[in-house]
Amino acid sequence: MQYGGIELGGTKIVCGYTDENNLLIDRITIPTTSPKETLEKCKEYFITNKVSSLGIASFGPIDPNKNSKTYGYITSTPKPNWENVDVVSYFKELDIPISFDTDVNGACLGEVKYGAGKGLSNVIYGTIGTGIGFGIYLNNNLVHGLLHPETGHMLIQKHEIDKDFIGPCPYHDNCLETLASGTSIKKRYNKSARDLYDNDSVWQLESYYLGQAMVNCILNYSPEKIILGGGVMHNENLLKLVKEKTINLLNGYIKSEIINDIDNYIVLPKLGDDAGVIGAIELGKQLI
Amino acid sequence: MQYGGIELGGTKIVCGYTDENNLLIDRITIPTTSPKETLEKCKEYFITNKVSSLGIASFGPIDPNKNSKTYGYITSTPKPNWENVDVVSYFKELDIPISFDTDVNGACLGEVKYGAGKGLSNVIYGTIGTGIGFGIYLNNNLVHGLLHPETGHMLIQKHEIDKDFIGPCPYHDNCLETLASGTSIKKRYNKSARDLYDNDSVWQLESYYLGQAMVNCILNYSPEKIILGGGVMHNENLLKLVKEKTINLLNGYIKSEIINDIDNYIVLPKLGDDAGVIGAIELGKQLI
Repeated sequence: MQYGGIELGGTKIVCGYTDENNLLIDRITIPTTSPKETLEKCKEYFITNKVSSLGIASFGPIDPNKNSKTYGYITSTPKPNWENVDVVSYFKELDIPISFDTDVNGACLGEVKYGAGKGLSNVIYGTIGTGIGFGIYLNNNLVHGLLHPETGHMLIQKHEIDKDFIGPCPYHDNCLETLASGTSIKKRYNKSARDLYDNDSVWQLESYYLGQAMVNCILNYSPEKIILGGGVMHNENLLKLVKEKTINLLNGYIKSEIINDIDNYIVLPKLGDDAGVIGAIELGKQLI
Repeated sequence: MQYGGIELGGTKIVCGYTDENNLLIDRITIPTTSPKETLEKCKEYFITNKVSSLGIASFGPIDPNKNSKTYGYITSTPKPNWENVDVVSYFKELDIPISFDTDVNGACLGEVKYGAGKGLSNVIYGTIGTGIGFGIYLNNNLVHGLLHPETGHMLIQKHEIDKDFIGPCPYHDNCLETLASGTSIKKRYNKSARDLYDNDSVWQLESYYLGQAMVNCILNYSPEKIILGGGVMHNENLLKLVKEKTINLLNGYIKSEIINDIDNYIVLPKLGDDAGVIGAIELGKQLI
């Protein structure tokens, strides 16, 4: 038995499959061009490499609700040509069980099964990159609700020194993504996060926002662990600052040894570059 | 078969029980005095009125985690004499299955089974009263996570005209409860919410905060319905303002007919004064 997965990202797509022992046998990377060109290449890959299930972890917003008319679609994405694309239908001729979920839910599931969240029942996985998104795993299940959570757009307090900043999110003045994503950093300083690596004031402000996000995740979901990935988190000092801000903002309200052991509570992902495709494969495997 | 429930509130406690047809046969109200006095009276009630299960829906924070040393306790409440009280142990001699959860999770379950959330799988119940709390029901289950959500303390944006206000929450400068609870209104204006009924600026500010809370609930949980109860919601104009602010703040980001049909999406509870005890009874029934 082999199990397939597609990590469908805005700039690149990773297809891969594992064997029965969860070993990643092969993976390929395809640039994200037009939906037709890109998805046809993915399909060809799985016609060549036969698998028993397929998981698709996609950028979004998506419609993962099987009872909906637009199930399997990428819906209102701002990415040109990808709005209202019926992703799942491309793979129907493979005639295997297909799971379709958000990229962050996929990555969250991967970390729960094989990474930093192994063995836990309630885990939040956040990616702080070009955009910001969270995968939510509660009561041993991924959370979808009506559509799927959009926790990356939660409204938070804008810092006074930042009050004239207009972030990149076209919808919200003070959502997390518009204030703290990599795109936001680039817009605010006209430099990339990497080029601002040693500028302390940048990371003080960034952690002010991410600290609020952590507090809200703790209060909203009461997770056993929070895992933070994504390009912005590559700054080694940032995680430390985020932890400090989280503890300061919680201000002793939550009496939990597990949460207050903050170094083991907010952690980096363990699966590295393969997290996305491994999570996608796991989404599909759960159907069997 | 009869099923018992206790709604354990900070000022009063309701004990009651239903028959097999979910009819409420009897209920009594007891003032909340010392833990011993109050809980002994509850126990006596259920020694007289025999039931097959008992659900306790309590003010908190509580410890509902069965694997924890302090399972069944009210933990870090500021209410005098009630900190670290082992509630569940009082009822062990009844020798029946006992469920222990938050008051808001109880009320949420009651509304899901018999009220405004009937038949749905993902429902948020919020109470906007002396304090603010939310019961969270996702994937057909109440959410606990590590402890239980404390969504009422989510951090939000403080309004500029409110920036010097110091709210009643001793932990957070800009949490929802400190900015929008009944206690907060009383502290800000030196009048009760009822005496401010016709003061539009009060309800504009209140709905600015509750609108943010609704947006964050929608983004964090993607519920099928949000039910808002509690004393502050007794102002008939408030719900309308909250809906307006929610739509304005979402700003078209979420494309869902169900959510954008806001009049049927954010609603008042249906169970009225019996919601708490009916929810508590239901918590217990689920164990059988």
